[in-house]
Amino acid sequence: MNNFTSAKDVKNVEELVKEAIVFKNNPLSFSHLGKNKTIGLLFLNPSLRTRLSSQKAAQLLGMNVMVMNMDKEGWALEWNDGAVMDGNKTEHIKDAAMVLSSYFDMIGIRCFPSLTDREADYSEHVISQLIRYSTVPVISLESATLHPLQSLADCITIFERRRNKNPKIVLTWAPHVKTLPQAVSNSFAQWMQALGMNLTITHPEGYGLAPQFTSGAVIEHSQQKALQDADFVYVKNWSAYEPYGQTPAVKENWLLDEKKMQVTNNGLIMHCLPVRRNVELPDELLDGPRSLIHLQAENRLYSAAIVMKKMLEAKPL
Amino acid sequence: MNNFTSAKDVKNVEELVKEAIVFKNNPLSFSHLGKNKTIGLLFLNPSLRTRLSSQKAAQLLGMNVMVMNMDKEGWALEWNDGAVMDGNKTEHIKDAAMVLSSYFDMIGIRCFPSLTDREADYSEHVISQLIRYSTVPVISLESATLHPLQSLADCITIFERRRNKNPKIVLTWAPHVKTLPQAVSNSFAQWMQALGMNLTITHPEGYGLAPQFTSGAVIEHSQQKALQDADFVYVKNWSAYEPYGQTPAVKENWLLDEKKMQVTNNGLIMHCLPVRRNVELPDELLDGPRSLIHLQAENRLYSAAIVMKKMLEAKPL
Amino acid sequence: MNNFTSAKDVKNVEELVKEAIVFKNNPLSFSHLGKNKTIGLLFLNPSLRTRLSSQKAAQLLGMNVMVMNMDKEGWALEWNDGAVMDGNKTEHIKDAAMVLSSYFDMIGIRCFPSLTDREADYSEHVISQLIRYSTVPVISLESATLHPLQSLADCITIFERRRNKNPKIVLTWAPHVKTLPQAVSNSFAQWMQALGMNLTITHPEGYGLAPQFTSGAVIEHSQQKALQDADFVYVKNWSAYEPYGQTPAVKENWLLDEKKMQVTNNGLIMHCLPVRRNVELPDELLDGPRSLIHLQAENRLYSAAIVMKKMLEAKPL
Repeated sequence: MNNFTSAKDVKNVEELVKEAIVFKNNPLSFSHLGKNKTIGLLFLNPSLRTRLSSQKAAQLLGMNVMVMNMDKEGWALEWNDGAVMDGNKTEHIKDAAMVLSSYFDMIGIRCFPSLTDREADYSEHVISQLIRYSTVPVISLESATLHPLQSLADCITIFERRRNKNPKIVLTWAPHVKTLPQAVSNSFAQWMQALGMNLTITHPEGYGLAPQFTSGAVIEHSQQKALQDADFVYVKNWSAYEPYGQTPAVKENWLLDEKKMQVTNNGLIMHCLPVRRNVELPDELLDGPRSLIHLQAENRLYSAAIVMKKMLEAKPL
Repeated sequence: MNNFTSAKDVKNVEELVKEAIVFKNNPLSFSHLGKNKTIGLLFLNPSLRTRLSSQKAAQLLGMNVMVMNMDKEGWALEWNDGAVMDGNKTEHIKDAAMVLSSYFDMIGIRCFPSLTDREADYSEHVISQLIRYSTVPVISLESATLHPLQSLADCITIFERRRNKNPKIVLTWAPHVKTLPQAVSNSFAQWMQALGMNLTITHPEGYGLAPQFTSGAVIEHSQQKALQDADFVYVKNWSAYEPYGQTPAVKENWLLDEKKMQVTNNGLIMHCLPVRRNVELPDELLDGPRSLIHLQAENRLYSAAIVMKKMLEAKPL
Repeated sequence: MNNFTSAKDVKNVEELVKEAIVFKNNPLSFSHLGKNKTIGLLFLNPSLRTRLSSQKAAQLLGMNVMVMNMDKEGWALEWNDGAVMDGNKTEHIKDAAMVLSSYFDMIGIRCFPSLTDREADYSEHVISQLIRYSTVPVISLESATLHPLQSLADCITIFERRRNKNPKIVLTWAPHVKTLPQAVSNSFAQWMQALGMNLTITHPEGYGLAPQFTSGAVIEHSQQKALQDADFVYVKNWSAYEPYGQTPAVKENWLLDEKKMQVTNNGLIMHCLPVRRNVELPDELLDGPRSLIHLQAENRLYSAAIVMKKMLEAKPL
């Protein structure tokens, strides 16, 4: 059985999205599948939607759920093989993964990037080590560079709300006050391209995303040009890929508003949440009829559920 | 369906207390009601009884339960509408409430007052904002100024142990080493009056409670006079309502003891716990035959359960 | 019904080990026993295996489980009777235990020693106070001086992997960078002797364990002599019993390696985890065919499950 960490783990993304929508229409029809099965959800970072939607999805499938805040409730983990563990790390991922594999039927993990060591982050060192030593399937609840359950939920949302087969989708950088990962943006670009969607990415100079995830998309440095005729506008802040983890100053105003949206094709607004209101997006857009943010969050239930369902059925994704 | 934040949300308090006692006598008779329903319990503050009794009550009803320590496991919340979120608050209650409403069938929340901003606390800004943006029923697990599940448990306890229809009930201030909220005291006064009980409140100068909750009670500044012929003595510390959140020095000795209790009508001692032993109440009273403290704590199960049961049945409280 | 804190609480250790192995072979056969029963798991310290294996064991028995991180989610507890609680302790164990007893059918607790006050630690002050005031059975999830669920899992592991009825078992001290409790070592020695096993303990000068737990074992100060013909080698660091909690310097090299293991009878390596790799034990042993560490961790499920099962059946251990 395979793991779920990326669109690349999915045989046919479009099929998976459609199956998730079928699940959404029959959320209680599969509650026998998880009987006597247990999922462990490991958090190395804070989480609201991911934590709760993953638990709820597992419960819809009739599974037992155990949540573990690794850093706060357990032991600090060593991730490097061969380490002489004479510092502040108490347990090696090698041992933790084997132990967890004997208690759980599948494991979900959330981990954030360092944003300082690009090579380690982009090699997905943390989740890769868990997968390497785990003997049960692993589900990414967001890793250093990708957030596949969010992206699958975004795909479901787009399928539900698109008004034509080939909508114009724009991913735009937005301002923020913190240094954020690139995971949601990389992942959205990856899944859109896996679906063959028409994707335009717009961002200030210096904020280009990792080419391996965006090479098939149109890159347009003028936000206003990018927005032209857009059906969906995905709004997200991210820090620079090069120089890695930096947040170079941006002179132009990248905060969207209703006025800027006028050039879109009655464009709909997407955001993965949490959103810094009136910093990343104004209340007028978040609370207006264009906003899909709550539908996206609700669809997190069904992206998680369909992935767990496939794993319970031991079917390829 | 309504929310549960105060005695005012209850049509007939006496009926609800009696129904809770019926539930207590048949705690496993309603476990089908919560099938495929989920309650989310959100904690912004520490909790033992509330946390565990709410979980257990939900399980008695067959519900799934998810517990979320918002501050420690999730994101710091912004509670003010229109805020420019450029500080340390990561998610707005508006978004969190909508997301939680799509995952949960009902939401419980515990939040403490600031004790610095009386207007915000007494407007119940926090729980009101959650209610405003939530689309499912909200249960107060203690708010800034009230603690209705505790009060309902106290009512159950009094109904179980009263020796006459109209007992004399005394709420007395007690010493403490910290600055405490007024919620338990306000709430007890509110529920006693909703039941038409004979309530006397006694406290040192400067510790008057909010008049909107106590106006129907007898206020007696002499603790010893207040205790005369009391059937139930509810012991609780609180900080001043005016000037708000202050703890003016108290010269007299307000610590109850067995000797002081001699003037009561074989009075029973109540406290909501946690209790600072030998500061708020002496061991001799807490461990003696007058003490109802453990019965009160046990009844927290049934106050929570009856409220959840009504919500599951979509019946008015 | 009795509590589970030590091998002394068990009538016949060999019988219990065999029953645990029967359970392991039929893990889903007893899921009716815990219907409508609830276990509360209280953690005063971090935990991975204990936390997760106890939850999973309870779920195998069909019980509801509530986990409480007492220090982080609840109130700081006062453990001393008669205390005037005017410091930073908010709730007395006397009250907490009574409340928990009204919510739970059994209680598990993990607590670590002070390592500064030997008398308090070796009187098991903390767990004894919980037991004293609880009205439901208490399971030690590791106490100040013993770790009985770990030891029972170790017994299961030895029964599963022994090649003769009376294997030579060696408990050897190992280096570490922190000051560790004596609980695992004391407990292993106690259970081995309860089984009548042939136990040799080896440690540097100054690291003698508490005589009440080790008096029946052979003490051998030369690690290499101790290892001669060993079938099982249990590796563990501990701090000194006298002077208590100290970690006197050790000149010799106590780190095991494959070469040292050559004198054993094809000896198998045991460790309770978490293990500091390449400090307590080298990768070559932990990852090699001698290692039983993951089997021991898996068997934590069945040591916990068999104890809970007996309690649910109200049978003596």
